[in-house]
Amino acid sequence: MDNQYQKLKNADLDHVRHAIRSGQYRSHTAGLGQGFLQANLAILPQEYALDFMRFCQRNPKPCPLTGVSDTGNPMMFTMGRDIDIRTDVPAYNVYRNGALDHDCHDILDVWSSDMVVFALGCSFTFEHALIRDGIPIWHIDHDKTVPMFRSNIDTVPSGPFRGKMVVSMRAIPKSRVQDAIDISRKFPLAHGGPVHWGDPRDIGIQSLDAPDWGDAAPVPDDHVPVFWACGVTPQVAIEAAKLPLCITHKPGHMLITDVRDDAEIPVLT
Amino acid sequence: MDNQYQKLKNADLDHVRHAIRSGQYRSHTAGLGQGFLQANLAILPQEYALDFMRFCQRNPKPCPLTGVSDTGNPMMFTMGRDIDIRTDVPAYNVYRNGALDHDCHDILDVWSSDMVVFALGCSFTFEHALIRDGIPIWHIDHDKTVPMFRSNIDTVPSGPFRGKMVVSMRAIPKSRVQDAIDISRKFPLAHGGPVHWGDPRDIGIQSLDAPDWGDAAPVPDDHVPVFWACGVTPQVAIEAAKLPLCITHKPGHMLITDVRDDAEIPVLT
Repeated sequence: MDNQYQKLKNADLDHVRHAIRSGQYRSHTAGLGQGFLQANLAILPQEYALDFMRFCQRNPKPCPLTGVSDTGNPMMFTMGRDIDIRTDVPAYNVYRNGALDHDCHDILDVWSSDMVVFALGCSFTFEHALIRDGIPIWHIDHDKTVPMFRSNIDTVPSGPFRGKMVVSMRAIPKSRVQDAIDISRKFPLAHGGPVHWGDPRDIGIQSLDAPDWGDAAPVPDDHVPVFWACGVTPQVAIEAAKLPLCITHKPGHMLITDVRDDAEIPVLT
Repeated sequence: MDNQYQKLKNADLDHVRHAIRSGQYRSHTAGLGQGFLQANLAILPQEYALDFMRFCQRNPKPCPLTGVSDTGNPMMFTMGRDIDIRTDVPAYNVYRNGALDHDCHDILDVWSSDMVVFALGCSFTFEHALIRDGIPIWHIDHDKTVPMFRSNIDTVPSGPFRGKMVVSMRAIPKSRVQDAIDISRKFPLAHGGPVHWGDPRDIGIQSLDAPDWGDAAPVPDDHVPVFWACGVTPQVAIEAAKLPLCITHKPGHMLITDVRDDAEIPVLT
């Protein structure tokens, strides 16, 4: 896979999508399709779609909606000229009654005519902007997964969807914290500005050494831990809602869209 | 009413809301509750809510969603501590089967347990920001309504909701056009950056002298007509969909929320 990843890293979008659709490439998407928006996924029966969409609207930092399919239509036409959501993501997790049932590389057999697809912006977009501005991101430099924590911040509930906000932590040099805030606020579709910076205990996190997801990351002297709302939040809310069926991307294995990373709106025109 | 408007102009938000709720104040809201977000309204039966919410997500410039109620709950709790949508707007239009049925000052008798309220950001927010930056807005200086035009730009359809985008025009001094673009792009919940500037015929507008809604405004020498997506767009889409019942605010008579004008997200925390 590694060899193939290196090849795809410099390939154009059509190439990358074809490799994923055909099942040749089944690994993570960080660094692929550079310059284009990547998205988290939640695929639910229509019965729950209005409540989930309200949940996203009420919690725009953890759940920045970038696209919603028509019911039963697997083509994400607002985000790409030819994106079939059943095949164009490298790996999926299928949940039944709130528990992981299996993972897979396409969902052709699970898809049905009452499904609605939700695509949600992810942190890649603002991380790239921070790096472009010279702010180092430790987990990227060290090829790790960003550390994520269950905070004590309540989400705004909607129907069966509720729970605490999950946050991701990046240690930012003290002198660049304001820059990091200002830059990330420019990307409301990629979690926007941080929800907290400074003492982790203020948001119910007792130790940075034991993230609930991802890898622990150091906070060197003269650095401040900065916390952004995280796309795991809706996954946790969905699991807690114990829907009969729900499909997500496998973490790190995102949907790559045709929308430019810096587009004002996530809709092709 | 004019006397009362002058008094309310300097009143705090609770005062303004009480005057509206009690029916003492029934006129337009421009300039009231300064510093707080105002919103356009669309109230629909739940049957159409998911399609309409998808329409807003796909057309975020004309339809920037700032709040969605729970079905049957008239309290807009994400945008205010005590906003009852049935009484807290100065005037409403009630449509039946796509045609205006009547206007009124509360909707206590029309409201039912299957209604969903959609609040949409409006242009006041970015206009204030332009004025603060020294960019003159003719229709405000002359106490007129902004000129609005049916363009030839298609919206992205969703279910029964579709149609052309309605745009509003402001003549901006040539030297300030880029500033106007940059400033308004900072307000994605208030229509964001303009959709066009320059020759109106490029977007299907034959004459600026005959707006489809509002008052004609001059374009002086050294000024450029700049067009923003307009909140009348969803009203036109809703009328065309001929829903059995739909309620909107009466143009200019908006919902005043507890959300600050410059809030990063339109959700009280």
